[in-house]
Amino acid sequence: MLKELREKVLQANLKLPKYNLVTFTWGNVSEIDRTLGLIAIKPSGVDYETMTADDIVIVDLHGNIVWGNKKPSSDTATHLELYRQFDDIGGIVHTHSRHATIWAQAGQDLIAAGTTHADYFYGAIPCTRLLTDDEIRNSYELETGKVIVETFRTRHIQPLQVPAVLVQSHGPFVWGTDADNAVHNSVVLEEIAYMNLFSQQVNPTLSSMQQVLLDKHYLRKHGTNAYYGQ
Amino acid sequence: MLKELREKVLQANLKLPKYNLVTFTWGNVSEIDRTLGLIAIKPSGVDYETMTADDIVIVDLHGNIVWGNKKPSSDTATHLELYRQFDDIGGIVHTHSRHATIWAQAGQDLIAAGTTHADYFYGAIPCTRLLTDDEIRNSYELETGKVIVETFRTRHIQPLQVPAVLVQSHGPFVWGTDADNAVHNSVVLEEIAYMNLFSQQVNPTLSSMQQVLLDKHYLRKHGTNAYYGQ
Amino acid sequence: MLKELREKVLQANLKLPKYNLVTFTWGNVSEIDRTLGLIAIKPSGVDYETMTADDIVIVDLHGNIVWGNKKPSSDTATHLELYRQFDDIGGIVHTHSRHATIWAQAGQDLIAAGTTHADYFYGAIPCTRLLTDDEIRNSYELETGKVIVETFRTRHIQPLQVPAVLVQSHGPFVWGTDADNAVHNSVVLEEIAYMNLFSQQVNPTLSSMQQVLLDKHYLRKHGTNAYYGQ
Amino acid sequence: MLKELREKVLQANLKLPKYNLVTFTWGNVSEIDRTLGLIAIKPSGVDYETMTADDIVIVDLHGNIVWGNKKPSSDTATHLELYRQFDDIGGIVHTHSRHATIWAQAGQDLIAAGTTHADYFYGAIPCTRLLTDDEIRNSYELETGKVIVETFRTRHIQPLQVPAVLVQSHGPFVWGTDADNAVHNSVVLEEIAYMNLFSQQVNPTLSSMQQVLLDKHYLRKHGTNAYYGQ
Repeated sequence: MLKELREKVLQANLKLPKYNLVTFTWGNVSEIDRTLGLIAIKPSGVDYETMTADDIVIVDLHGNIVWGNKKPSSDTATHLELYRQFDDIGGIVHTHSRHATIWAQAGQDLIAAGTTHADYFYGAIPCTRLLTDDEIRNSYELETGKVIVETFRTRHIQPLQVPAVLVQSHGPFVWGTDADNAVHNSVVLEEIAYMNLFSQQVNPTLSSMQQVLLDKHYLRKHGTNAYYGQ
Repeated sequence: MLKELREKVLQANLKLPKYNLVTFTWGNVSEIDRTLGLIAIKPSGVDYETMTADDIVIVDLHGNIVWGNKKPSSDTATHLELYRQFDDIGGIVHTHSRHATIWAQAGQDLIAAGTTHADYFYGAIPCTRLLTDDEIRNSYELETGKVIVETFRTRHIQPLQVPAVLVQSHGPFVWGTDADNAVHNSVVLEEIAYMNLFSQQVNPTLSSMQQVLLDKHYLRKHGTNAYYGQ
Repeated sequence: MLKELREKVLQANLKLPKYNLVTFTWGNVSEIDRTLGLIAIKPSGVDYETMTADDIVIVDLHGNIVWGNKKPSSDTATHLELYRQFDDIGGIVHTHSRHATIWAQAGQDLIAAGTTHADYFYGAIPCTRLLTDDEIRNSYELETGKVIVETFRTRHIQPLQVPAVLVQSHGPFVWGTDADNAVHNSVVLEEIAYMNLFSQQVNPTLSSMQQVLLDKHYLRKHGTNAYYGQ
Repeated sequence: MLKELREKVLQANLKLPKYNLVTFTWGNVSEIDRTLGLIAIKPSGVDYETMTADDIVIVDLHGNIVWGNKKPSSDTATHLELYRQFDDIGGIVHTHSRHATIWAQAGQDLIAAGTTHADYFYGAIPCTRLLTDDEIRNSYELETGKVIVETFRTRHIQPLQVPAVLVQSHGPFVWGTDADNAVHNSVVLEEIAYMNLFSQQVNPTLSSMQQVLLDKHYLRKHGTNAYYGQ
């Protein structure tokens, strides 16, 4: 069932160690088939070295296991909330990648400080508010998804224009048009998270780049007037 | 004698260079057989490239060599003190891994700043007090073990809940249920030691994460109510 | 047509991932044949793994495609402006290499802080001013070339004596006598960009090295009295 | 002639890229035969990939080429001054290894901040004073050797007890009992140079470790009462 989707999700998961985004099995990738309303997601606690497409689990948007004999990732409830609320995203990655996690631990947005950022993210990558004690105690993984959605709604950010978030005290969730694109965005996030650490160290008063330059770089690659790299 | 234990300890030692935890031969791993009261430990000054299970030394809890023709690691007395006093630990790793050692040199605890930490360590990883001149001059390696024990007792920390310590001006000792688990914890320690350097640089007033979030992440993976990654 | 030049440019492009100067396809190298006034440049959006010499595009100094069926790099207009105005340079590299980009994002020159710098760059590597909104909106890639030229002219810097620039909020452009030499200089730029981050952290009042030492190191390797490494 | 010595020096040179101590050909290793008063040293400008023992040059203590058809390293005059004045050293390494060079550029000593340092270096690694303009202009490479010797004499440091120096605005020279030992010490220097950057960032008031602990670690590995790792 959905063998092609499971194979895509497997390959996307295997890119996490390839791009040094994970230590051990700390990460998970999923992709949704919007027509069927079904999600393929990494199983919980399986090593990347031995994982096959048959380990990938298929769940519906309410978390029911539709196919597979493994338990889906413990973060499944977060993925599902994002798929339910952000209806144009097709794939999600969660890791504790080092430099994005540094900013999440620091509780700070990742500002747009240069064109590397602007080529992929149309503005600052937001950091969520802290969860309340009740949110942590009850349905923690679901509430993690809800606070991400709340962050994007209250700050009027379009999910596919800024396809990443820093969950405070935790780490990044990244998405994209499909699983592979979400992994790609995760690699970019690490690059800019690394660079901003030092750009802000060198220049402590550094603020966001010019809006016109942000527009130029983002819009020459995305949207109807894109002309870059095609 | 105890060939299986020696083989396990060999494999755990070989993971130190694999995970970039050591330079040259700077590190040692041991594991205890609690039934027999015997410890298998890395020999002193043998290269990882040529080390075999027959180089691993078996000592008793008082340091007597029971099997093997190599000299046990110079840090054996520290390992033994930890095995004697922390009776639920099964394996110990000592390295000078870069980022944990940075915090040991700085003389500071590694605070719990995010869920990566909370998934493995139930609170701050303590840094020991400085040894006195007498402790350094007399039975230095034994006293290193004693100051670790003192740190956990006076601060009421359970060794298996926070399976690592930073020995001030020196480096980390890490433990676990067995040698392999201790190496695993050493890798995690490096990750969080690296990330905290920069999280605290970006946010100089960063303090420990919410207790409720620490509880949630630690307890969903450890103890009787664990549900994560199974 | 110009197969040898295209092969050289291919090989120079393939060195970018080899030396960890690029993520994905974020980089491009070109080389000019000054006799013919023709430039070989990387195509837009082609992976390094599959790129061949037949993908390399030949353009003239006005940007007309003379040979090839791929689109030339989106940064071609910047390369061409540099070739038109700096008539002693033979090859150009553009990347978002991490540490040079950090300084570009910070908007600061890279001062000459030691002999590693002085062996290759005869003084500080300048950071350009911000582009105006009009420059960004109209002919952005050409204006990027123009602001580089303006920087070198107003600061009286000889392009081959300081074969690199930091384009503010963007990243480095590096050049040399040919494409291969430009890649070589890009590697050196990363080294000194990395080292200066920390030299200035350790010593916040660090200023440029002694002029006599800069002269010594640069001139023993370059110019008519060079004696080093021959 | 002296084929064995040349082979040793070749192998020691090849360890520089292996241990990530050099970029391109930025480094050189030599070893002296004290009985004959002859030094084998890396040739100038030869790639590590193609270097053979027959490229290694033999010079006497006055710099006369005794064997070989390559030009000896441009830094030969510095090596020779160290061999002439420090009569118990047997091998010398010069690199621009990243983290040691950072401290040299910052113009600061590398203090003994932990036992990793103390296991190899019996106290701070000194940074030289700046050379005068005359010293730079005249016999620069020889004067570099002289300022190293002056530093050790005026600060009463024994060369084999602290087998490294940071030449200000330049980079490290490291030595040892032979070429291989000097490379080994160069690797250690990089480790402690890296760690101190961050230990001092985390703890800006960090000062040297306890003298008794420095004594303990250094003396348990060196000298007549050594007992460690044998």
